[in-house]
Amino acid sequence: MQLKTPYLLFLGDAPDALAAKVAKGIRDWRPQFAVGQLRMDGCQADLGLTDMTVAEAAAAGAGTLVVGVANRGGIISDSWVSVLDSALESGMELAAGLHNRLADVPALAQKAAQKGLALHDVRHPTQTFSVANGKKRSGKRLLPVGTDCSCGKMYTALALEKALLERQRKATFRATGQTGILISGAGVSVDAVIADFIAGAVEWLTPDNDDDHWDIIEGQGSLYHASFAGVTAGLIHGAQPDALVLCHEPTRTHMRGLPDYPVPDMEDVMKLSLQMARLTNPKARFAGISVNTANLDDDAADEFLFETGKRFGLPVVDPVRTGVDAIVDQLDA
Amino acid sequence: MQLKTPYLLFLGDAPDALAAKVAKGIRDWRPQFAVGQLRMDGCQADLGLTDMTVAEAAAAGAGTLVVGVANRGGIISDSWVSVLDSALESGMELAAGLHNRLADVPALAQKAAQKGLALHDVRHPTQTFSVANGKKRSGKRLLPVGTDCSCGKMYTALALEKALLERQRKATFRATGQTGILISGAGVSVDAVIADFIAGAVEWLTPDNDDDHWDIIEGQGSLYHASFAGVTAGLIHGAQPDALVLCHEPTRTHMRGLPDYPVPDMEDVMKLSLQMARLTNPKARFAGISVNTANLDDDAADEFLFETGKRFGLPVVDPVRTGVDAIVDQLDA
Repeated sequence: MQLKTPYLLFLGDAPDALAAKVAKGIRDWRPQFAVGQLRMDGCQADLGLTDMTVAEAAAAGAGTLVVGVANRGGIISDSWVSVLDSALESGMELAAGLHNRLADVPALAQKAAQKGLALHDVRHPTQTFSVANGKKRSGKRLLPVGTDCSCGKMYTALALEKALLERQRKATFRATGQTGILISGAGVSVDAVIADFIAGAVEWLTPDNDDDHWDIIEGQGSLYHASFAGVTAGLIHGAQPDALVLCHEPTRTHMRGLPDYPVPDMEDVMKLSLQMARLTNPKARFAGISVNTANLDDDAADEFLFETGKRFGLPVVDPVRTGVDAIVDQLDA
Repeated sequence: MQLKTPYLLFLGDAPDALAAKVAKGIRDWRPQFAVGQLRMDGCQADLGLTDMTVAEAAAAGAGTLVVGVANRGGIISDSWVSVLDSALESGMELAAGLHNRLADVPALAQKAAQKGLALHDVRHPTQTFSVANGKKRSGKRLLPVGTDCSCGKMYTALALEKALLERQRKATFRATGQTGILISGAGVSVDAVIADFIAGAVEWLTPDNDDDHWDIIEGQGSLYHASFAGVTAGLIHGAQPDALVLCHEPTRTHMRGLPDYPVPDMEDVMKLSLQMARLTNPKARFAGISVNTANLDDDAADEFLFETGKRFGLPVVDPVRTGVDAIVDQLDA
């Protein structure tokens, strides 16, 4: 899965700014990929990019129209199809990370075939993978692991990649979910591969590399999430991480989607993650903790970061409030 | 996935007895399902069942021809197609657990459609599952977990089901792999579902039941297997096991398929399995240990079982040498 850059970011009829979070992620983390935005009538999101028609984006060299918006239900809206069709007509490919597939919309499938253009349904891997072989690979790898789903693992990984690159270090963000794939233009939705190949897909995604190169792998789920721990376990084994970063959201009262399951203690998650990681990389260790303190005020956030650092003797950051430099300092060159 | 019984067991051109192990499993564990065997010229396997032509099996009421043989490569041989086709012609459904699909053989797909008969490719689940919800279900569940793959988990589960039924207890073997599905006529190949739905598929497979009913769930892989631990983790969480049984093969020198990975200590596997299991069932405990001592002589086997029992203070059995009664004694009514 490799998307043609740059992108026209399609915001459709987004009901609010939050609905356009995929497009926002691209603008924030890969601004060089975002040639412009396309907003339909009634769109309530605005990324502050140049508004473009399909024709203007094509003239500006856009290689792919990326569906950067999710409506309720996460499916492709009928009202979008004529715009998507015109993008194909203009020679752009399409990419989306929604539940239904671009390829299952007959008008789009037909037009894409006729024009010889790809439809990238990044939530649905089409390639096949090998079973993981567990062999040590060259280069270094970092994997965020979470106390829960959706607690900042992708954001932390992207921030770490950016900080490493700013120091002229070799680093590559490796996307394992649909938003990460759309942002970075490549990757594998590991939760959508066949169960036998979770670890194998991650081995494929993070191949041998320079000894001083860091793959910064997007984390998924949590070993303590009763729905998704299998994905997390395979991801940890396939990643063979040299460094782990714990991600945590301190105000959450229960696991996402599971009201009866409390959020585990950070220490328990670190112990179990380290035990799993050391099966395929005996040198795995924690390089730091990344806390999403968005729901805390400044004083409470400062105190939480300070107390957590004292408790674990590790750098503790919030990528938004503090940046991630304290963790990058821990990563061997 | 529910197969029509009884079966005609197709042994094809099996090069040796081992190649017919699926058929042997059906004969051993569900003899009432095996109406006869069909052997082609050169077949080197013999289950001691009545040899039947397709016509004879159809007359005897066979509902499904089960491909009970695996050739090198694990695919459907061209030389089998005319026999399989004639089974469809006679009104039987087909079932196989091979790498390629019956449904992908054009002649069979066409004939099945024409006759309105199902082709059961049990390695390839076609149904969709929900994400696991982690909610406690009624009834009791037992799950074997292994130090490695292929160390006796299916055999142990089938032996436990049989022993419970012989005591007039309520029990159901729940298959999670292709051989188990073909033997029991139902189940889900959990290693072949989409990664996000591993635990959800197991929740579906083992629904609410009578309080004194035991689901005996077929185990898969190992938490210490670098290729497949994700499947095992999701299986443990979805199973919500009340009882675990450790399965072990004491002469193995490395993990199956991974020459660089030693077999873990039994105690480590028990600790990690229990920790994972207690996320979704805090009452999970080990009910015993099942050792495959086929590669040990009588004295060495006796000694291993005795020493292991002393070490862990649990019933330790070999289902073949000793039976599994000592474990069944541990299962609450």
